[in-house]
Amino acid sequence: MTKAKTNPGRFFEDYKVGQVIRHAVPRTVSGGERAMYHALYPARGALYSSDEFARVAGLPSAPIDDLAAFHVVFGKTVPDVSLNAVANLGYAEGRWLKPVYPGDTLRSESEVIGLKENSNGKSGVVYVRTTGLNQYDHKVMEYVRWVMVRKGDLAAPAPEAVVPALAKVVDPKDLVVPTGLDFSNYDFTLAGEPHRLGDYQIGEKIDHVDGVTIEEAEHMIATRLWQNTAKVHFDATFREDGKRLIYGGHVISMARALSFNGLANAQMIVALNGGAHANPCFAGDTVKAWSEVLDVAETAAPGVGAIRLRLVATKQGAAPFAYKGEDGKYAPEVLLDLDYWALMPV
Amino acid sequence: MTKAKTNPGRFFEDYKVGQVIRHAVPRTVSGGERAMYHALYPARGALYSSDEFARVAGLPSAPIDDLAAFHVVFGKTVPDVSLNAVANLGYAEGRWLKPVYPGDTLRSESEVIGLKENSNGKSGVVYVRTTGLNQYDHKVMEYVRWVMVRKGDLAAPAPEAVVPALAKVVDPKDLVVPTGLDFSNYDFTLAGEPHRLGDYQIGEKIDHVDGVTIEEAEHMIATRLWQNTAKVHFDATFREDGKRLIYGGHVISMARALSFNGLANAQMIVALNGGAHANPCFAGDTVKAWSEVLDVAETAAPGVGAIRLRLVATKQGAAPFAYKGEDGKYAPEVLLDLDYWALMPV
Amino acid sequence: MTKAKTNPGRFFEDYKVGQVIRHAVPRTVSGGERAMYHALYPARGALYSSDEFARVAGLPSAPIDDLAAFHVVFGKTVPDVSLNAVANLGYAEGRWLKPVYPGDTLRSESEVIGLKENSNGKSGVVYVRTTGLNQYDHKVMEYVRWVMVRKGDLAAPAPEAVVPALAKVVDPKDLVVPTGLDFSNYDFTLAGEPHRLGDYQIGEKIDHVDGVTIEEAEHMIATRLWQNTAKVHFDATFREDGKRLIYGGHVISMARALSFNGLANAQMIVALNGGAHANPCFAGDTVKAWSEVLDVAETAAPGVGAIRLRLVATKQGAAPFAYKGEDGKYAPEVLLDLDYWALMPV
Repeated sequence: MTKAKTNPGRFFEDYKVGQVIRHAVPRTVSGGERAMYHALYPARGALYSSDEFARVAGLPSAPIDDLAAFHVVFGKTVPDVSLNAVANLGYAEGRWLKPVYPGDTLRSESEVIGLKENSNGKSGVVYVRTTGLNQYDHKVMEYVRWVMVRKGDLAAPAPEAVVPALAKVVDPKDLVVPTGLDFSNYDFTLAGEPHRLGDYQIGEKIDHVDGVTIEEAEHMIATRLWQNTAKVHFDATFREDGKRLIYGGHVISMARALSFNGLANAQMIVALNGGAHANPCFAGDTVKAWSEVLDVAETAAPGVGAIRLRLVATKQGAAPFAYKGEDGKYAPEVLLDLDYWALMPV
Repeated sequence: MTKAKTNPGRFFEDYKVGQVIRHAVPRTVSGGERAMYHALYPARGALYSSDEFARVAGLPSAPIDDLAAFHVVFGKTVPDVSLNAVANLGYAEGRWLKPVYPGDTLRSESEVIGLKENSNGKSGVVYVRTTGLNQYDHKVMEYVRWVMVRKGDLAAPAPEAVVPALAKVVDPKDLVVPTGLDFSNYDFTLAGEPHRLGDYQIGEKIDHVDGVTIEEAEHMIATRLWQNTAKVHFDATFREDGKRLIYGGHVISMARALSFNGLANAQMIVALNGGAHANPCFAGDTVKAWSEVLDVAETAAPGVGAIRLRLVATKQGAAPFAYKGEDGKYAPEVLLDLDYWALMPV
Repeated sequence: MTKAKTNPGRFFEDYKVGQVIRHAVPRTVSGGERAMYHALYPARGALYSSDEFARVAGLPSAPIDDLAAFHVVFGKTVPDVSLNAVANLGYAEGRWLKPVYPGDTLRSESEVIGLKENSNGKSGVVYVRTTGLNQYDHKVMEYVRWVMVRKGDLAAPAPEAVVPALAKVVDPKDLVVPTGLDFSNYDFTLAGEPHRLGDYQIGEKIDHVDGVTIEEAEHMIATRLWQNTAKVHFDATFREDGKRLIYGGHVISMARALSFNGLANAQMIVALNGGAHANPCFAGDTVKAWSEVLDVAETAAPGVGAIRLRLVATKQGAAPFAYKGEDGKYAPEVLLDLDYWALMPV
């Protein structure tokens, strides 16, 4: 009798700066993933919903939703990066580099770019830069993530602390606009709202109004679809309280989809500046979202601008535009605080 | 802080007879939508399940289920037509005009064809004729729907009342049989039942026997798949009773799929004569269905006849063939009363 | 008023040895079915997840998961074989004969190969050999299944007892390796684990560690996807205890997917030697799995070996490696006992 063949996950002392981890299992995406994404989230971005709309915008067809691509890339890293993680601490320098289309096959690699043992000697912070690649070995996205990971052997010596310098915000000149993207003939009626980039003011906040009550079956179906198999999302006997913790990415996608109502033209996410899963989300929670316009920028593509948004997801009981208290801590009803760049017609 | 960018929906006074509304968001359908439709409903119509069966019947491949096409077209109208609706009052003159295949992109338009303010001055009835179009701007379906919509401004003057004359039943000579459809070589064994049109008697009632208990996750997944985002279906904090109202179309598809058992050869829905959502449906309800044969007709296509059916969905506690009481009102266990034409081998 | 048109199912006396039943409804599978399979189960076999991985292994693209193909073939037999079944007694001589790819259309046929009335005169055992065929009439799989079926007419005479001689195990020389399969360039990192056939010892047991708590919505969605419409899985009013019995195949797929953790390289199931649904499974149960290596064998394909595994699914409360008690009966927490051959790189 042995457990030796199952994956115990990596512990803090198993990571070395410079180490490159090729993650299992490559994944070919199809219209099936698109249909499921749109069934699990109220996603309605026209560019991701209609081949015709995408063609008018200069793309060969509708890509797989940007966050679906993110989840596929992210899901593969879980067995290697976060199986023994105590906490998911942050994201930075995320960029979408190439749209993903039905038929593409994605895989992921991560490079360890930082390590810092905690003063308690029981865990440490691991920084990885993860890259998603398609079947041509073209990069489709990259992002930095850092997690707190338990030590397996408490006697293992602390590594030299390396904390990478990470940009607070992706510089708009580093945003990658998909080749050919052109919003000159953008049909605002078909897209769902008349608001173009110039209609948004920096500092403007938008209450996205709609809410969705989350069910166990839904978040598990979604999380499995991304081949993210962390026990805590699926096994009601795993946590002492008998609750299944909802994958943070489920909340990201739910909030982003809800933000259609008010940001229908924030079509493509091209950068993830940062993000925090402020509080855990469980089945039965009703998720709502609000956004704040943080910045705007130009791009070289015809008719295409960029908007930097803070996307905040909240649950039932949240005050309007709930965020942080005077102590700088998130209100208990705040689930997510995400900072991203999206492309929008000017 | 503003909600100004979110869609408040149209109020009664915002509609004008003759107005044409182009609805957002176009949608390309794929095998993903078909797989999900067949996973959400016990749909087994051979023509919609098998490319080979469809080819023998003269079609290029299996279309997307007729009601899936309906839901896609209908879902797009919700933000423009029924966001502030108090009640969905009826359907008429629905016709499927062209099968929808994986790869097709659908969009919807609605023309306001009638308006009548209620005597209370607080709401009114809006009649729209909705058309679904594919990427070639070919009509794939059309139907009339009328809803009761709240007034936003109670001081707005009542419009001149226009109540369109609507056919009680689509005349069989107006049914559109898909080009090439031919049931001469129809394989009744593969289709699942031996009964042809001649085996059904007008007035015959069929108890479809099977039942399905509905879960929150399922109706929300289905309703989102059609990009129908009416709050009342998703947000458990929206109604005072904490219940999520199930999209009426979910009940339509469930009942139609259940009717396979006894009507396996009623393959394609080609007309919607009328329909009523008699009582609301909630998660936990067990849906069953029965049908009554209302009429039969010939078509010009080889081996293809038409059958007019009343499809009634009921929930737990319903008497056999539960319908209306002596007062003409629906029994409280009746969920749906639908009147449609389907094509069946003669 | 009549139920005459609905399918009452066959009773014991309706079967004759030698009878061939062509089952309804043929089914074309697509990437939609693959996406759903991977969303409903934590399936991560690289060969079924990635077109690129499959090509390196000599296949034209990633097939539909072996058990998804099984469910499609099996589902079609339910209305003809097990609608009036009291119990599903066993499986034998199952073989996967040809991979199923998106675009293939499957249908099923069953030949009655044995009949034995029970001594109580109220039911009997029916043995069928079921074959799944694709659109070219090529066999994609076959298996023997026997079920206990009620008699409809207790006065019907007992048929001559015919009990087929069934192999306890599919002989490894009868395993069909897909044409072209070649594991010479197998990428163990992408596949998820380093263990090759030589790393497994006969008698070795593997605890697959992970668990999944099952929801009503999930097992119903899965079971409908395979067009298995047995009432007992869907209708909470059908059983006296108000529970919906989970389709045994749902447990098979869940356990097999969980076994990835420790058996990631047991890529393709090629034979089903036997199986028992030891105890019923209901929503709320948390399924875990363990495997035992029963045998290994060579194949003629380059780099491809075969491993015979016992896969046992258990629910909450099970002891480690729970199986049978001293009385030879399954422990009450054992859900499934499956004996199969899979292909694995040597």
